[in-house]
Parts: sequence; structure tokens; C-alpha cells
Amino acid sequence: MSSPPVPRPPSPVSAVNLAEKFSRIDDFWHPRIVGALNGQLVKVARLQGAFDWHHHADEDELFLVVRGTLRMEMRDETVTIAAGEFYIVPRGVEHRPVADDEVHVVLFEPASTLHTGNVVTEKTRTSLEWI
Amino acid sequence: MSSPPVPRPPSPVSAVNLAEKFSRIDDFWHPRIVGALNGQLVKVARLQGAFDWHHHADEDELFLVVRGTLRMEMRDETVTIAAGEFYIVPRGVEHRPVADDEVHVVLFEPASTLHTGNVVTEKTRTSLEWI
Repeated sequence: MSSPPVPRPPSPVSAVNLAEKFSRIDDFWHPRIVGALNGQLVKVARLQGAFDWHHHADEDELFLVVRGTLRMEMRDETVTIAAGEFYIVPRGVEHRPVADDEVHVVLFEPASTLHTGNVVTEKTRTSLEWI
Repeated sequence: MSSPPVPRPPSPVSAVNLAEKFSRIDDFWHPRIVGALNGQLVKVARLQGAFDWHHHADEDELFLVVRGTLRMEMRDETVTIAAGEFYIVPRGVEHRPVADDEVHVVLFEPASTLHTGNVVTEKTRTSLEWI
């Protein structure tokens, strides 16, 4: 699975306000890029419901919750991530994010990461946009 | 400037609570590691006062403010980073973080990054600890 090309934003001259970014998102499970550094991307997404089981063979993935509570189901355990908390899903670990109520999450992962990992489902977004 | 070895934590089985981490820090300008992924480190630090001017030749550095307001002085401009905002200082850009009042910040940068960049000052911490 090759990763999509990553567009570059205009040089930022101000800080990125997360709440303002979330206010511009009107769909779920559709990450948008808000920052790029050192080959990594910072993304934001609104989550609601259950995502698909998947893993990333070579990439660790950080989920920082800024609103709501995210449940990270893994095969052997489930980690609850409340607002103000983060969790890093290690590479290779099958996981399924579940948001019983709406969750706002900041993602940190390599630019090569496809959010559905090793599987392509109806939720898969192969194009990544800046917001 | 070679980077210090980075100790590894026990495998985390729960989310990392940022407020709990900050509550365990009792000094300023002393970043602690709270996460590692893809060759990058997540650090937290309490800031107060002015840091030293420096740059990182090969590393971009993300500052996510979770409490207070941080002023990032650069030679050509100053960016204000409020709570809930982040700013990425591009590699090579001289900068000086200033916290008029106490700031809690989450840093995201390569494991090789020394926080005072190209200079070593009384504030330089060459050993990195997990918290």
C-alpha cells in the first residue's frame, strides 16, 4: 500500500488552534492534516462509532484525545483514553478505535501512514488534505 | 553534539494522563519523556521566564501548549501559542521560548533533539528521563 502524496501548506506564521480546526470538520473518521514535521504528520479527526480492525506493520500511532473518551480495543486488552490523555498503539498491534460518543482526537504518525492500516474499507481515505 | 541514550519505559498498558505528568514536575525548563514512537519523543515541560536563543539544524520542533500562553520569539517574527494551540518551529530557525507566566507544554521532536539545540547553557539538560 503506497501512501498518498502529502500536499504542503503555506508557511504558517501563526499557531494552529485545535478547536478552530475541529469546528471546520463536518464528518467522522476523516483525518485532516494540521501539521508536518520530521517526516511525521499531525492530523485531527472527529470520531463517532466503531472503526475497522486494522494494524500498521511499521508505524506506531499516537492518539491524543482533546474531547470525549476514546476506547482503543486491541486483541488482548482495551485502553480507555479520556480528554487530556494519549495512547501510542505500537506497530503491528491490531486495534479498533471506538467512540461511543463523539471524540475529537489529534493523531501523530508518519506521513506514510494510511489510517486503516493493512486493510481498505469503506472508511478508508486515500487522499489527505490540509485543513 | 551527540544525543544522550534514551531509556525505554515499561510497556504502557494505560493511557498517559498529561495533567498527572505535569503534577509530578517541580522545576522549569526540564523536559521529561512521556512517549516514544517512530524515532520521535513526546516530552512535557513546565516553562517560566525566558529560555536561551538556539536552533536545531536538522530537526523541526512542535510545541503544544496545554496551560498558559507561550511566546515563541524568532528573529523575524513572534508567534503567540495559547492553550489548545501548537506551533512547529522549522529546523534551522533561531528561536527563544518565553513564558511570562507559567506554561505547560507538550513537545514533539526527534529522539536526537537536545532542547537547547546548537548551544549549551546553564539550562541544558543532557540526560533525558521518563516520567
